[in-house]
Amino acid sequence: MRVLGVDPGLTRCGVGVVEGVAGQPLTMIGVGVVRTPADAELGQRLVAVEQGIEQWLDEHRPECVAVERVFSQHNVRTVMGTAQASAVAMLCAARRGIPVALHTPSEVKAAVTGSGRADKAQVGAMVTRLLRLDAPPKPADAADALALAICHIWRAPAQNRLQQAVALHAATARKGRTA
Amino acid sequence: MRVLGVDPGLTRCGVGVVEGVAGQPLTMIGVGVVRTPADAELGQRLVAVEQGIEQWLDEHRPECVAVERVFSQHNVRTVMGTAQASAVAMLCAARRGIPVALHTPSEVKAAVTGSGRADKAQVGAMVTRLLRLDAPPKPADAADALALAICHIWRAPAQNRLQQAVALHAATARKGRTA
Repeated sequence: MRVLGVDPGLTRCGVGVVEGVAGQPLTMIGVGVVRTPADAELGQRLVAVEQGIEQWLDEHRPECVAVERVFSQHNVRTVMGTAQASAVAMLCAARRGIPVALHTPSEVKAAVTGSGRADKAQVGAMVTRLLRLDAPPKPADAADALALAICHIWRAPAQNRLQQAVALHAATARKGRTA
Repeated sequence: MRVLGVDPGLTRCGVGVVEGVAGQPLTMIGVGVVRTPADAELGQRLVAVEQGIEQWLDEHRPECVAVERVFSQHNVRTVMGTAQASAVAMLCAARRGIPVALHTPSEVKAAVTGSGRADKAQVGAMVTRLLRLDAPPKPADAADALALAICHIWRAPAQNRLQQAVALHAATARKGRTA
């Protein structure tokens, strides 16, 4: 499974592609940051994020895009930009028919470090170890994007089993009604 | 000046096109709502909003798109959807090189009713009067989109004068430095 992780942001949007399956060593395919100038108009910044994400999708053809789920508890100004950048990333993927998965920051931290409250340094260290890199990817947004992709690959089997169980239950219920 | 007003939302995204200039009677060119099913996946809903906005831009060729500025003080769940839908609207406009203007809800209310704290019914009544309609546009999101467009047409002259003054000041400052 090849996953593009996106840590959404207007100033820096982290992107990272990881390939592999749960239970086996993972491979980093690419990592980077889509940047937009803080003094540009909001519409132009969103267009730049779109172009950046499109380029990553074109180049790496992921089977799934994992995006950080945005909450609005944090700083008001930042969270709006984050929500808007995440919308563009989800739009780009969905337009191509690529499934989009959302993971919360604590799910991602728990997946790669074992603790939902881990700090940036810990996440960076674990991403470095899990992908057998020489040094933690910089900036932190890039490392976070890789962590999202890893989290998705590891959680996917459980999520698939859950979806299959729900589908089976729904099918059985339908059968029960028509019987 | 022809303006497309957008009251962003995932479930109902209000859209309204108004034509005219400040100080003269305005004309409604079109009004409607782009809807997306609440049970669809978020990515698919954003794609549907994009298709809806694109259709309105194709059909009405506005010179400007006025979008409600989203704040995160309100309900957490709703505000994220609103921010994401507004991002899609801004992206569609900016991609075509159409200027995007943001107005706060209180700016819009103050523009059409004289009070920044007016309720939905008051905004609907004034939109009906200002555009010489037979009845208030339904749902409220559609009326709000028209109010946004009216607000933008009325505020545009002041905003343009301000921009010109800033540009003039910058030019004078440059001239002063090079002299």
